[in-house]
Amino acid sequence: MEHIEGGVTAAKGFTANGVCAGIKPGRTKPDLALIFSELPCAAAGVYTQNIVKAEPVKLTRSRTKEGTAQAVIVNSGNANACTGEQGRENALRMARSAAEELSLPESSVLVCSTGVIGQQLPIAVIEQAVPSLVKGLSVGGRKAAREAIMTTDTFWKEDAVRTEIGGKTVTIGTMAKGSGMIHINMGTMLGFITTDCDISAAMLDEALRESAEGTYNCVSIDGDTSTNDTLLALANGRAGNPPITARGRDFDIFLEALNEINTVMARKLAADGEGAEHLIECRITGARTTETARALAKSVISSSLVKAAFFGKDANWGRILCAMGYSGELFTPETASVSFTNSRGTIKVFDRGTPLDFDEDKAKIILTETEVGILIELAEGDASGIAWGCDLTYKYVEINGDYRT
Amino acid sequence: MEHIEGGVTAAKGFTANGVCAGIKPGRTKPDLALIFSELPCAAAGVYTQNIVKAEPVKLTRSRTKEGTAQAVIVNSGNANACTGEQGRENALRMARSAAEELSLPESSVLVCSTGVIGQQLPIAVIEQAVPSLVKGLSVGGRKAAREAIMTTDTFWKEDAVRTEIGGKTVTIGTMAKGSGMIHINMGTMLGFITTDCDISAAMLDEALRESAEGTYNCVSIDGDTSTNDTLLALANGRAGNPPITARGRDFDIFLEALNEINTVMARKLAADGEGAEHLIECRITGARTTETARALAKSVISSSLVKAAFFGKDANWGRILCAMGYSGELFTPETASVSFTNSRGTIKVFDRGTPLDFDEDKAKIILTETEVGILIELAEGDASGIAWGCDLTYKYVEINGDYRT
Repeated sequence: MEHIEGGVTAAKGFTANGVCAGIKPGRTKPDLALIFSELPCAAAGVYTQNIVKAEPVKLTRSRTKEGTAQAVIVNSGNANACTGEQGRENALRMARSAAEELSLPESSVLVCSTGVIGQQLPIAVIEQAVPSLVKGLSVGGRKAAREAIMTTDTFWKEDAVRTEIGGKTVTIGTMAKGSGMIHINMGTMLGFITTDCDISAAMLDEALRESAEGTYNCVSIDGDTSTNDTLLALANGRAGNPPITARGRDFDIFLEALNEINTVMARKLAADGEGAEHLIECRITGARTTETARALAKSVISSSLVKAAFFGKDANWGRILCAMGYSGELFTPETASVSFTNSRGTIKVFDRGTPLDFDEDKAKIILTETEVGILIELAEGDASGIAWGCDLTYKYVEINGDYRT
Repeated sequence: MEHIEGGVTAAKGFTANGVCAGIKPGRTKPDLALIFSELPCAAAGVYTQNIVKAEPVKLTRSRTKEGTAQAVIVNSGNANACTGEQGRENALRMARSAAEELSLPESSVLVCSTGVIGQQLPIAVIEQAVPSLVKGLSVGGRKAAREAIMTTDTFWKEDAVRTEIGGKTVTIGTMAKGSGMIHINMGTMLGFITTDCDISAAMLDEALRESAEGTYNCVSIDGDTSTNDTLLALANGRAGNPPITARGRDFDIFLEALNEINTVMARKLAADGEGAEHLIECRITGARTTETARALAKSVISSSLVKAAFFGKDANWGRILCAMGYSGELFTPETASVSFTNSRGTIKVFDRGTPLDFDEDKAKIILTETEVGILIELAEGDASGIAWGCDLTYKYVEINGDYRT
């Protein structure tokens, strides 16, 4: 497996584009994106568990249940959530306008929205932009697409990997957005995965769910699970590999590649958390089960107090123990150890239940880096888990104190 | 029932004091407090559900299980949590030094700590301060006591009420601290309740638990449940009322008075949340059950994004719906309505599933006030619930980015 350029159009047969429709008045950057496959695709999705679901989520979820799709239209600047009957109609119209322009059946177009909740989508300006959106579809159009899906993101996020399945080169590409209203427990952003792998919709769904569990579902920025979280995968079979229709060696290779790009993207999301200055990676080892390890790690990186301490470059490990303690998982504090670690070194601060006198200066050097690891050894079993988060900064408060206006 | 002055020494037979022991070097304000009853008391406590429990919590919990106590010694500046064997010994020594000076059996002294996690208690300076702490016990000493338990609190918190039970005047007083690491689900701070009511330990325990559920357990500042949360009640019987040993009319009067002071204190805690500029009171009506109503209200006031919006005086009601949606409780967004309300007026922003065009200027006027109410009508039943929180501010980040040093 190797990482390659090309993002969401790296796999054979995919094109994309992004244009500025003007969904928010005065916007000059792209805000409307399209991903298109020249062949019909197996399709799968995972969605927010929030019971307040945006209208595009309801629509797209019903369509991926059928297991096929050929295009995805996405807007930023408006979530089309809590918008009632009119919002439902607007989501349908958005998909329909792309379907008509692409000469596709309406049901093969998926739709996603991201942005402010509770305002009606300016559907006319979207419909007006769709012809030029479709006209500009190209492999290089992924660059405009990855910009168009951004909201408060400070950088675009994409990745692609190439691997070999059944003697054929298979490529998986992805792009995603999301830096606020992000929490463990589903989707946690908008993410789009395209692959030329020949895989059945059922197995694509299985791979997507399994991979999301240990990647996207282990990221938290602020503990808020949005109304719009969606992770979609489209597979068009152009690689010509023997079709994957059951678990086995080929499925495992595909899953490994999927895990790789999803892990890269999960880290990017955390690093670009609203206002974030530090990416925090919490790794729990020696746990009884993977579930326990992940739950403990998620609780640590979700804690406001832990996050604020990282902002202050303060080795306040007591808050880490505290956050583990209210995670709902059982563990034995008396045998736990805690270290901070990254490229600048490793420093142990708590050793099997006892605080250590540690070198505060050395700790400060480690905590000043952009990426900081928290390593927690439980000594209770062999399982491990990782979660990713970021620090809580003045900037986060600033961004979210005045987002709607 | 009437509110009166006198706080934690308002009830007959209680004295208190606070002195500066110097638990944090350079501290000049009181940091060590004592509450004393001239008679042995029925005692009850509710404690943090965090499985990482501070040493004083473990000790005090084991002692209140016996149902009697006569004094409480409390320090701020150090939580004595995650401190291992030495921490356990220090908690015992802290209680013992007070017991010796008061000529009480060791087991009748309870102990609480609050402050930084993971540092050993400077037990020698505490032991040195205990004689003057005991010597200065008086009714007026409550003023030094309420100061001594403060950490990042910006104001002291106390209340007292007087009521009549069985023809006798019964008084309940309280003081509390806590403005960070505060969350629903137990204790949520240090709180001390003293009463001259004659009530059995079992009924005191029952009243305390029931009252905490709808008051202290409905406050969240930052979603972090601390290692030290403790709410203690001492009842010395000096009022001379017919002993309360079962549920009934007298118990109900007592519980009502307890609810009254606990509600007042819960609001004070939320209003003094670290860095808070606004007290947010979320009231859910028309819910199917009280539990659902409380859970939804707690989810709203716990949301970082809701909290940041209130800081920005932004009527971003979409985040409120979103937070209800991930609460884990079922409700029907299509029949829900949302209003903002306080002394400046009421404005409805979401009406039975549909966003309203509302007057942004009027909303801003309401949201600029120190206290803001969120009123959510579900139209699904007759139950209601309230939770209290505060906004998320730059100051919160500042306080917690550099708390340990």
